[in-house]
Formats: sequence, structure tokens, C-alpha cells
Amino acid sequence: MDVLVSEVGPRDGLQSLGVTMPTAAKIAWIRALAAAGVKEIEVGSFVNPRLLPQMADTGEVVKAARDIAGLEVMALVPNMKGARLAVAAGAPKINIPVSASQAHNMANVRMTCEQGIEAVAEICRYRDSLPESARIGVEVGIASAFGCTREGRIQEDWVMEMALRLVKAGADTVGLSDSVGYANPAQVKRMFLRLRKEIGGHAGGAHLHNTRGQGLANVVAALDAGVTTFDSSLGGIGGCPYAPGATGNIVTEDLVFLLESMGLDTGIDFNALLRARDVLQQALPDVELYGSSPAAGLTKGFAYANPSRGFDPEPAKAVNQCDL
Amino acid sequence: MDVLVSEVGPRDGLQSLGVTMPTAAKIAWIRALAAAGVKEIEVGSFVNPRLLPQMADTGEVVKAARDIAGLEVMALVPNMKGARLAVAAGAPKINIPVSASQAHNMANVRMTCEQGIEAVAEICRYRDSLPESARIGVEVGIASAFGCTREGRIQEDWVMEMALRLVKAGADTVGLSDSVGYANPAQVKRMFLRLRKEIGGHAGGAHLHNTRGQGLANVVAALDAGVTTFDSSLGGIGGCPYAPGATGNIVTEDLVFLLESMGLDTGIDFNALLRARDVLQQALPDVELYGSSPAAGLTKGFAYANPSRGFDPEPAKAVNQCDL
Repeated sequence: MDVLVSEVGPRDGLQSLGVTMPTAAKIAWIRALAAAGVKEIEVGSFVNPRLLPQMADTGEVVKAARDIAGLEVMALVPNMKGARLAVAAGAPKINIPVSASQAHNMANVRMTCEQGIEAVAEICRYRDSLPESARIGVEVGIASAFGCTREGRIQEDWVMEMALRLVKAGADTVGLSDSVGYANPAQVKRMFLRLRKEIGGHAGGAHLHNTRGQGLANVVAALDAGVTTFDSSLGGIGGCPYAPGATGNIVTEDLVFLLESMGLDTGIDFNALLRARDVLQQALPDVELYGSSPAAGLTKGFAYANPSRGFDPEPAKAVNQCDL
Repeated sequence: MDVLVSEVGPRDGLQSLGVTMPTAAKIAWIRALAAAGVKEIEVGSFVNPRLLPQMADTGEVVKAARDIAGLEVMALVPNMKGARLAVAAGAPKINIPVSASQAHNMANVRMTCEQGIEAVAEICRYRDSLPESARIGVEVGIASAFGCTREGRIQEDWVMEMALRLVKAGADTVGLSDSVGYANPAQVKRMFLRLRKEIGGHAGGAHLHNTRGQGLANVVAALDAGVTTFDSSLGGIGGCPYAPGATGNIVTEDLVFLLESMGLDTGIDFNALLRARDVLQQALPDVELYGSSPAAGLTKGFAYANPSRGFDPEPAKAVNQCDL
């Protein structure tokens, strides 16, 4: 496998919706994703259920997802309390968001950036106190790394200083997040190259959104900088409910098509991903799903990057005959 | 200006629609585009009006567009007959499509690839016979350069051989087209680098579609290869009418946002482009427009690549406050 596609739809996607997906439907969707070859899924968030009732069943979802062979299960954790819940549920890996924007971090988790870094340190000390068998992986994503809806531009030096401090605090990896669609490819390439220079093998993945249509363009730039892990959500769910057309996470289907057609093995079967999309759409019939490749299908002559995987590309759809 | 955004909506977009835009509406739309700073527009196609009734008024549209100060006016021309009509209408520049796929070229213009190249040679001889003042620019776009809905994979060696022959035939520039959304960034970068090596300064621009969501990702790869001209259509019109969601040309709004945020000057005002989008939508109320940046608006702290242009970025829209 050349690139890890880390599915965040069950967390980042579902938390943005006005509806709550029933637990059984979440688990069926996660199973369909895993069946398509998805290797890592962020299945939920250990946050206050009064703030995000869509995530109230995360403990149960983590337990069910852990039974799926070959799947790395992650959960988002905003603070020490969430970390304890994650460990109790048996989550093998947690994702802690810390924003590079003071205003955003305060609004998101009621902490300054410095307090967010200290919370990571506290969680890492807790992790280190656990018996070897229960020791969890700790990933941190620096939110608003490319700009902030409240503060506008964010100093790159500050983002890098945070990354260094977070590694010192004990994070296994520190990635960069653009959950508001502010990043551009020049910036993405520059900052991920610098991140690797600053924190070496602790440099984590890219969490990119497609808010202004630039998501996959930023993927190309991140690949150029050596990034090999990308968050995405099936159907691109996670858009802003207040602005129709302003899409959310980059679309897993389009990302997998892009990477595989570039010759980068994801281990994921595109057509099985479309079946997982059907599972999602049936569970949430009123939610708009994004992405262009699902309607278009694979190209004629398409071949997966790793031919030995033996996926069988299905015949191209009608659109492929459309070239007036 | 660092990058030329060449608007093809009035040709590639409108020719794909089931409705015909009235001539006055076309001209109003073209004026709005030019007012936003668009420097080149392909305003129509000199083809058989029985085949494409949407383009029957191209002569009239060319004449009106020529009156707009500072605008380079282009028209598509499939053959010698079209070239004569273009010259008669006073089009300063023509675009001739020749497909690298025998099956596609035959279906599109009833010629083999070799006959297509010979048609370019004939048109260039005609151009050379004109008085200096009436001499037109001749651009050729090699269609299906990255793959074909009928033939699947296309040999890159054949595309490069065609490019060389087309330059020999007299084309000013030869670009590469992906009107069916088959291209991937690795291929785009490799082929445009090779194109420049083969035909040097005759290497033309990139005509990319967003059929599988990969349009702007391919732009980043083409920029890496030194491409400085990109076709796009406002609202991304030009999608396939048979496959909802399978979008058409890359979206001008998203392209301009991408380039300007990368620090590449396009000379185009994003918010004025949105006004041109309104003009288009009012003229064609039932046509679905694509693009994500129109709903999201510019980012907080956004600055144009060329600060001396003095555009006034409008305040960000509601989506910018949405970062749950």
C-alpha cells in the first residue's frame, strides 16, 4: 500500500449533520467501508453528548468496529475525559484536535492553544501509565493550520512551533488540518515539507476539506511533499449545513480514483466503495452526497495501481460515451 | 499576469446543453465575464447548425465580442468551411480540435487523425494566404490525449507524434485536452513536460474536465510542468446530460480562487465572476451550475496575487463561520 486513506465520515461527516444515524446503521456502514478495503476509520468522537448527540454511541461503535479484521479503529478525543472513555471502550488509537488559532481552539474546546498542548501532554502521560497491552496510539491534528475563519491568516512559524511542542508532549504523529477549506497547494506543499523537516518521522497526515473545490488539488501538493496519509469522507459528508454547495471533507470515492489512477495503491476497491455509498445513502436518504466519480464510474481501460489485488473494474457508465 | 484563464463556457458549456441561449443573453454573459477581467473567451463554434443549433449564431456573437476592449476572442472550427466562416466573422483566433483517438475523431468530425492533421495544414495554408491584417491565430487541442471513452488508453508516443505533425502543419500552439475526465496528475505532468520538450514554445494549454472530481488536481500537476493557459467554464457547465453529478469543464470560479490563493495572478476579480455567474443563471434558470467557491466565498484574509490590482475582497460568507 502506498497511501493510507483514513475514512473520517462516521466522525467528521456525521457530526455535522442535523440528523443522528442509528447505531446499527453506523456499524453496517463501517463494515461496508472495511469490506471495500478501507484500512482505518475514525468511527466517532468521545465528546459531551449534549453538545454532539450524533456521537453519543461512540463507545458502542468502537467496540463493534474493533471486531472487524484488519481495520484500524480511531476515535476523536478533545480532552482527558474523552481519552479515558476511549480507553474504556478499547479504542486502539485516538485523534486529538488542537487548533493553531486561539479563537478557534477556544470556541471548539474552550482552551487556549497552550492549554490544548498541555491537554495532549496530560493524555500522553495517562497513556504511558497504562499497561503495555492497553497502550493507545495518539495522533494530533493541528486545526486551522492553513487559516482560520475567525483569525484569517495563521503564522506558519507558530504552526511549526506547535508541532514541535506537541511531539515533545508525547504525540506519536502531528498532522495538519484544513477543516474550513482555506489551504492552497503552494502552502500545503511548503508547510508539509517544513513539518517533516521540523519533526521528521512524527509528521502526520493531511486532513483536507473541499469547501472551495480545492481539496484534491491540495492532495497533489501534499503527495509532492511526501504525505502518505489522507483523511476523507465517503460522499464528502461533513459540509456546512448553512451554505449549500460548500462541500465538506474531500470525497473518499474521488480520492481513491485519483490515487489509484496515479499509480498509488490504496488497497481499496472503487466499486465496493460505491456499494458502501449506497449503504450510507439508504441510511440517510435526505442527506446530499458529493463526489463526481460515483456518477461517472471508472474509466475504460482503468487498472488498479497494484494489479495483483485482482479487483475487477466494472464497465464504464453512460457518461463515458458522452463526448459531444 | 501569471496564468491565462481561457473561458470556454459559451462554446464547450453551451454546446452540451439541451437548451439554446438567446444571442443577446450570450453577449451579456460574455460582457460580464470580460468585466470580471477574463482576457480570452471561446465564444462559439463554426459547425453545422443542424448538428449544434446552440451555436448557430456564432458569427453574430464573435462580432459583438470583438467590440469588447482587451478581450481575445476565439471560436472553435472543425474544418476548412468553419475556418472560412470564422475569418468572415472576424474571429482573431481559432481553435481546431483533433483527437488522438481514431474512433473519437471519426465520431466527432468524420475524419481519421491523419485527415484531421491534414485539415489543420489546409487551414494554415489558407491563413497564410490572407492579407497580414486578417491573419488569424491557430490553436490546436489534441482531444482524448489522456484516454478515450471508445478506445481506452491512448499511446503517449502517438500524442507526441501528432503534436509534432500539427506544428509542422502550421499550428501556432498545440495543447492537450481531457474532455472526458480520464487524466490523472502524474500523467498530466509527464505529458506536458514531454510536450514542451517535443515542440518547445508551440506547447499550448490544458483543457481539463472535472468528470471524476480530478480537474483542479490536474491543474496543479500542469502548473508543475510549466503550463500557463487553462480552459475552464463558468459554473462548470458542459457536463454530460446523461449522468447527473458527472460534471463538465473545470469551474472558472474555483480555478481562479485556486490560482490566486497560490499567488498566481489571473487578472480576474472573483466577486465580479460571481456576478457573471448570476447573469448566466438568470439566462438559463434550469441549468445546474457547479463549483464550491461561489457558495463559500473568499477566505478571511484573502489577498489577490497582484495587490496592485486593488480588488476589494468582500467579507466572507456564512460558511466561513462553520467549523463545528
